[in-house]
Parts: sequence; C-alpha cells; structure tokens
Amino acid sequence: MYSEKFYPETIHKAMRYSMFAGGKRLRPVLAVAAAEAVGGSMNDILDVACALEMIHTYSLIHDDLPAMDNDDYRRGKLTNHKVFGEGIAVLAGDALLTYAFEIISSAKVASPDRLLAVIKEISHAVGTLGMIGGQVVDIESEGKSITSETLEYIHSAKTGALFRASIRAGGILAGANEEQLCCLTKYAEHFGLVFQITDDILDVIGDEAIIGKPVGSDIKNHKATYPSLYTLPVAQQMAEATISKALACLDTSGLQSEFLRELVKYLAIRNQ
Amino acid sequence: MYSEKFYPETIHKAMRYSMFAGGKRLRPVLAVAAAEAVGGSMNDILDVACALEMIHTYSLIHDDLPAMDNDDYRRGKLTNHKVFGEGIAVLAGDALLTYAFEIISSAKVASPDRLLAVIKEISHAVGTLGMIGGQVVDIESEGKSITSETLEYIHSAKTGALFRASIRAGGILAGANEEQLCCLTKYAEHFGLVFQITDDILDVIGDEAIIGKPVGSDIKNHKATYPSLYTLPVAQQMAEATISKALACLDTSGLQSEFLRELVKYLAIRNQ
Repeated sequence: MYSEKFYPETIHKAMRYSMFAGGKRLRPVLAVAAAEAVGGSMNDILDVACALEMIHTYSLIHDDLPAMDNDDYRRGKLTNHKVFGEGIAVLAGDALLTYAFEIISSAKVASPDRLLAVIKEISHAVGTLGMIGGQVVDIESEGKSITSETLEYIHSAKTGALFRASIRAGGILAGANEEQLCCLTKYAEHFGLVFQITDDILDVIGDEAIIGKPVGSDIKNHKATYPSLYTLPVAQQMAEATISKALACLDTSGLQSEFLRELVKYLAIRNQ
Repeated sequence: MYSEKFYPETIHKAMRYSMFAGGKRLRPVLAVAAAEAVGGSMNDILDVACALEMIHTYSLIHDDLPAMDNDDYRRGKLTNHKVFGEGIAVLAGDALLTYAFEIISSAKVASPDRLLAVIKEISHAVGTLGMIGGQVVDIESEGKSITSETLEYIHSAKTGALFRASIRAGGILAGANEEQLCCLTKYAEHFGLVFQITDDILDVIGDEAIIGKPVGSDIKNHKATYPSLYTLPVAQQMAEATISKALACLDTSGLQSEFLRELVKYLAIRNQ
C-alpha cells in the first residue's frame, strides 16, 4: 500500500487554518451540554463534539468559495481559498467532512449502536434535507424577494439542523430517554432560531472589528434577514420571545439544564 | 422544524445527473463480489455498495471542477458544473458524500459494529491519507516531472484506496475472517494497480467515442502516467504481471473467487 512518506502537508495545513481560526465552538458546546444535562460526561462526547466542529468548519470553507458566497474574510482572517487556492479549499472542506465521520466511527467511548445512531442523525442533518438544502435555497434566493416562510426554511435547514443534531447527538450518546431527547430537540429548535435572528441583528448593529467580517454584508448581498423582513425592533422582540420558549422547554423537563439556560440567553447579548 | 415543501429539487437533479451518467460501477461490484466470495449475499451489501458509488461520483464531480482538473466532459456528457454551475456542483459532491454515510448508518442488514467498521474503513480510505491525499499530490505534481514512486503514491491513494475499501467493506459486512480479509486486501491492491495502469494505457490507445473523454488528456495536462514513465509496451507488461499476482492471491485462498478472477482479467481487455 502507499507510503505515508508522501503525507500531503498542504491539505492538513489548510484544514488546521480554518479549524483554528477562532469561532465560538457552539456545536461542540451544545453536544457536551446536552450529554451533561442527561447525566453523561464530557469524555462520552468529546470525539463527536470535535467532529461536529469539523463539519461546521467544512461548511464555512465551502460557503465562502467564489462560486457560493465569495467571501474574502471570515473571523477577521482571509478565507481558506484566499490563502490556499480554490482547489485546496474544496478538498480541505471535503477532508474535514470525511474526517468527522472517521472520528465518530473510531470513537471508543460509546456502544456501536449509539455511534451509528449519531452518524445517521448528523449525516441526515447536514444533507440535502438539512444544511445543504438550506444552502441551495439560499443561493437560489439571492437577489430575489422571499417570503418569511422561505427565510425560516433557509435558516432552520442551513444552520438549525446542525444545532439540532449536535444537541441530539449529545443526548443519544449519553443515553437520554425518549422524553429527554424530545425536550432537548425542542430546545435546540428554539436555540437555532434565536441564533439566526441574533446573527442577522449583529450584521446590522455589530462591531466589525469584533465579529471579524464586514457589517452590512447581508444588505450588500441582497440577502433576506430578520431585520430586513420585520424591522430591527421586531426582530429583537422575536429573539426575546424565542428565548422564553427555549427556557420554558427546560423548565418542566427535570434536566440538569443550568448551562443550557445560560447559553440561549447569551445569544442575545453576544457581540460576535 | 423545517418543512419538506421547500425540498430543493436542483441539488437532487445535480446528484442524479452524475450518478446516472454511466460508469462501470466497479466499486459496488467489487464490494458485492467480495461479500459473495466469503459466503455473503448481495442483500447484505447493497446499501453499502450504493454508498461506495456515491462517494466515487462525489470525487469525480469535485475533481472535474475548474479549480481542479477543469474538465468539460466526463463519460461523454458535460461535467456537473458545466450543467448546474460551480456552486451547485460543489454542493452535489458534498451531498453525495454525506448521503453515503447516511445510507450506511441507516442500513438494517448488518450488525452495528460491522457497519461502524465499514464507515471507519471507507472514511479513512477517502480521507487525507487516501483519496484526498492522492488528489492533493496530483494537483501539486501537475506540470512537474515526478518519480515513479510519487506516481505510484498518487494512484494508490487517489484510486486504489477506495477499491481496497470497497472490497474490504464487502468482506467485513459478510463476516470474513482475518485470513480471508487479508487475501481480499492483497487482491484489491493488485486490482487497483492494474486498473490504473490500464486506465493510463486507454488514455493513449483508447477510442474517444467509447471512453467518453478526449484521448491524450493526460499528455495535454502534463500528467505523469505509466506509459509516459515506462513506455507503452512496458506498461502493458506491468499490467499483465500485476494481474498474475492478483490471481495468485486468490489461488491459495479457498475463496469462491471465480468472479474476482474474471474481473481483474477484464481490466486489461476493456475498452472504456
């Protein structure tokens, strides 16, 4: 078989560049928090948590490509293709997605049936009925006026589905029962919506130096956002109301959910 | 959660376009043949076999992109990005890779530990130490003169690793023992080499109308090939010698290997 002396350094440099370009690590944090909320420990979930961040990073690298959003900066640094070229950027995204599944399938901490359930959960969430589907509709909607229903679809599919899968993966790996998983799932859906509304708001009122990309880029790209569709004050009210719903989900659940409570509230006060 | 009424047709059209553009289906065939060789049945392996073809198709779509090989035709049809645009082509490749893992993780025919072993096997084979690594070194070698050692690495990583994983996946799913798996693996490595040598030969002496892409494209792209590195007659001798090695692997194995014997011999007489 082939020798590892040809180890292709470039691709690993490109993968690391984007993996360690910063970021809030929300998806791994959610997975760990969900596992802990049902009595699991960090160790049960760490491999899968890393895999979730890799998948998120892959999606950012591909979204930034000239053929998609054509962004030059991400988190205050040049985007992957601006540094390594488009060919390597496509491959770095491919490699992170692939490595994510290798890591999950190699994890030793959970039973094979749980790991398999997690792979099914995540691959469905980031497939054409989830993240990729959202990106397709997003691309196809650019420059068009869209309904609030389409906007909601784009965000819930493009961003929400992976949040949802991250939380559910944590729950599944830590052995959540059906009721707990149902509660975590509802929380996740509200969490995803709050994230997206507040993300859109930051694109209007955020500090460019802190968020690391140009403010107003959604307007420039004629993207439909919550503030553009509902006005800024209404979008802010929607975020608050959705946070309340997420908290209400946790209230009656009996989960150890202090961290999850704080996390969804943090979304509204974050500055990046 | 998001509604499926927004089902993004475009991406599924793009995925189907390349999946059903023809092709020899060698990877699924190898997986089924390996399963049958150790007493398994087609049903045990069909989901995984489809997943392998999806992964192969994803790699072709991404390889053909302007930022990589920049090919306009594949199997006599326009390449994916020429029909659907680069953005959708990147996403169609992503989606096929993702869906492959969803299908394997959802397969009901084998035990979770075998399915998980197959995911590990395949994801490693198509990652940076396998298929993606080979593609990176291939891109980096274009227009340079390379050693026979590098050529062998590129091919064994870029093409050989997925053949190897396909055969091993068939064996693993059908419950091959260690000795059987070892024999199948050696056969697979010879098979991959024969495939690549004969593929390079077809690029020199093949019929453009049958192979569906311009003959001589390797020369045009200054790609190192077996004929260019060793001359055509020597390359043909190498293919024959490697076929003999593959057959010798099977001779002493006790596997039900008639189909595998014919398949490796077919590589040298194929016209596409």
